[in-house]
Amino acid sequence: MSIKKILELSNEGKTVQLKGWVRFNRSSKKIGFLEIFDGSTLNGIQVVYKAEKLNDEKTFKFLQSLPIFSAIDFTIELVKNNKNNVLEGNLLKINEFALATENNPLQRKTHSHEFLREIAHLRPKTKTFQSIFKIRSLIMFALHSFFNEQGFIYVNSPILTSNDAEGAGETFKVVTNDKKEFFTNSVSLSVSGQLQAESFAQSFTKVYTLAPTFRAENSNTQKHASEFWMLEPEIAFADYNEVMDLSAEMLAYVANYLNLHAKEYIDFLTEQTGVDLGKRISILMDKKIKKIKYEKAIEILKEHKEQFEVQDIEFGLDLSTEHEKFLATFYEDSIVYIYDYPKTIKAFYMKQNDDQKTVRGFDLIIPEIGELIGGSERENDFEKILTATKANNIDMEELSWYLDLRKEGYLKSTGFGLGIERLVMYLTGTKNIRDVLPFPRTPGNILY
Amino acid sequence: MSIKKILELSNEGKTVQLKGWVRFNRSSKKIGFLEIFDGSTLNGIQVVYKAEKLNDEKTFKFLQSLPIFSAIDFTIELVKNNKNNVLEGNLLKINEFALATENNPLQRKTHSHEFLREIAHLRPKTKTFQSIFKIRSLIMFALHSFFNEQGFIYVNSPILTSNDAEGAGETFKVVTNDKKEFFTNSVSLSVSGQLQAESFAQSFTKVYTLAPTFRAENSNTQKHASEFWMLEPEIAFADYNEVMDLSAEMLAYVANYLNLHAKEYIDFLTEQTGVDLGKRISILMDKKIKKIKYEKAIEILKEHKEQFEVQDIEFGLDLSTEHEKFLATFYEDSIVYIYDYPKTIKAFYMKQNDDQKTVRGFDLIIPEIGELIGGSERENDFEKILTATKANNIDMEELSWYLDLRKEGYLKSTGFGLGIERLVMYLTGTKNIRDVLPFPRTPGNILY
Repeated sequence: MSIKKILELSNEGKTVQLKGWVRFNRSSKKIGFLEIFDGSTLNGIQVVYKAEKLNDEKTFKFLQSLPIFSAIDFTIELVKNNKNNVLEGNLLKINEFALATENNPLQRKTHSHEFLREIAHLRPKTKTFQSIFKIRSLIMFALHSFFNEQGFIYVNSPILTSNDAEGAGETFKVVTNDKKEFFTNSVSLSVSGQLQAESFAQSFTKVYTLAPTFRAENSNTQKHASEFWMLEPEIAFADYNEVMDLSAEMLAYVANYLNLHAKEYIDFLTEQTGVDLGKRISILMDKKIKKIKYEKAIEILKEHKEQFEVQDIEFGLDLSTEHEKFLATFYEDSIVYIYDYPKTIKAFYMKQNDDQKTVRGFDLIIPEIGELIGGSERENDFEKILTATKANNIDMEELSWYLDLRKEGYLKSTGFGLGIERLVMYLTGTKNIRDVLPFPRTPGNILY
Repeated sequence: MSIKKILELSNEGKTVQLKGWVRFNRSSKKIGFLEIFDGSTLNGIQVVYKAEKLNDEKTFKFLQSLPIFSAIDFTIELVKNNKNNVLEGNLLKINEFALATENNPLQRKTHSHEFLREIAHLRPKTKTFQSIFKIRSLIMFALHSFFNEQGFIYVNSPILTSNDAEGAGETFKVVTNDKKEFFTNSVSLSVSGQLQAESFAQSFTKVYTLAPTFRAENSNTQKHASEFWMLEPEIAFADYNEVMDLSAEMLAYVANYLNLHAKEYIDFLTEQTGVDLGKRISILMDKKIKKIKYEKAIEILKEHKEQFEVQDIEFGLDLSTEHEKFLATFYEDSIVYIYDYPKTIKAFYMKQNDDQKTVRGFDLIIPEIGELIGGSERENDFEKILTATKANNIDMEELSWYLDLRKEGYLKSTGFGLGIERLVMYLTGTKNIRDVLPFPRTPGNILY
């Protein structure tokens, strides 16, 4: 039985079996206290061992010397702590154990995130990473639940692909161990499952992907990793206004789910990071959103241009992170959608507005992070997307199946991509993407 | 509103907006019938158009000529069909449409699975693939739900890795577009997330992965693909008996979920394939399982050896598919777990039994497919796993973090891998793995 279940279901006086790891161990001459965790709750359970009760000097001494992170299997009797009225255990019997070493790298009291990244296989034992990875897991499940409830089909777009959805060329190539082609054509790792998801949306109306994606980008920032998870919903027959609203519904669902299931972790991280995570969650829960046109965003930025490094702000500017961060906090207590971007700075597949200069693309920007979501209505006109493909120097032959979808009953489709790690960073107050990925992959040496 | 919702929520006489694609279109002089689908239900909804009602010869003619798979946005009035009492729609207004072409490759009446694989972007429009991919999606969600309910943490093990969990060497190498190393060491695509999941199980007790995995195996069988999805739960403190039972619980949960949510799809595929899918589901739901030792399996096979191509059946034999298929049906109406395999044929990380010759590994084998699940208790003894690593010629340096876990409070751990596609094949009666993957990747040419 997990510690969570023990604390929920069991009563004072009951005898239970407890399995977990030692987080703290302190003792005086006749009494000792262990904190045991098993990952089911943040704080674990206190176990008291007494020389008198054990009636065995050797066992008491052994317990006193038990290194932290040792694994234990105990039989305990549940009692209420006199002071705080919380359930704790009196040790009755040691069933099994496996010692940790005294030079376990987690021994030292405080650790920098940088140091902990070097021991990614051990860091989930710390309270900080128990919280981050628990919340990451809950976010993933909340997303699956939301889309399932809404009648979406989960589609597994391929990772091995001959298409480069973004046309950016920053792909990893996949070969055999002796660097030969395995397939008969050149194959790379997917940067997006969108194109394939679009074809499924033309059969199922509402679909989504949730899978790893890859970028061979040689940038060493706090926001970029070579491997990250992306959510990509795609909805046929929907326009971009409906889908902006759907994405806000989705974020509200996730925030509400965390509010119900992750309170102790959110509270712990709020204290640790100094970020008001409760406020971030309630803004999402309340769906406090603002939608502004790109043109309006440019106006706002112009009015405050003295604040920016890039001050040459005109229609056509590809907003940089400093601009996005500014706009993200411009409307207090709201998240901000920007839409109708210049077509010159957006992908070839976005639907063109009648004004000839903008496309029905939208981004959701959030404080500290910048872009969380990027989406668009898709160009459904075969001739227009063909022209855009050419203008972007994209190999049409490999994308012919995608363009041809437009000939076979393609009325409308809108979708977006959400970087899972950015959402986890936002909701855990984490600054570096390396700290929300179990085993982060960034340029340099790959361990694990 | 989806067709599913329209049929569930709406009443006769109500006017609703309908969006979807044309599956059938037949008409006589004055009346026509369209079947419209949108992926929310298998059978869609019938829309009736009448020359008389439309009061417009041109529109009636247009509808008569509407190619199947055209996308439509109609306003309809819901009425009950006189004959079968099912809700259908009288066409009131055409809001929007997008035509399909007359030479849409799906036009022809029946298609082989082989042909449909060539048009993987269109085949989900067929009833067969609507059913398969709907069930695939429901299975994935059922798995996430089961593990979430049981308190498991969903872990995203890395896809880019320097470790080869199976030591089989059949990995894909990942390089830059000009075939240079991107990272400072050699990196390949993961064949399993187990090793990293194990480290998380040593922090959270109960974890699972559900992610794509890759094999650069040049085999062209009905069961193998270069890219496939794998579920890998890992449970600290659990032995292999508990985990065999957990996996049976999990399969019962999935079967029950399909029984509740996929009936029309299961019925359709049962008719299509001639496989009694209801029976497969009820065997799993009822948890009809048999556990037999490998030694016992060998005895059974010996007694029936005249049936096999490989007849040299002795302890130490690595069971081939023909043996597994035989054993899978040996106990009527039960699925079969085989455990305690010879250590010579299993992976280095499996826990050794005291008999010196077997390991605590187990497989679940099922009719038609063979192995569905492969799992084991993990070797927790540092010296023993070190010896096994050497005996298997595995690079210890790159795995040192994994071996070192044994030194830091590692009492016990058991996990298994389940190939998602095999489970989907089993529960949809599909013979070829290429037909349960949205865009299958097998040796040869990669489209999409």
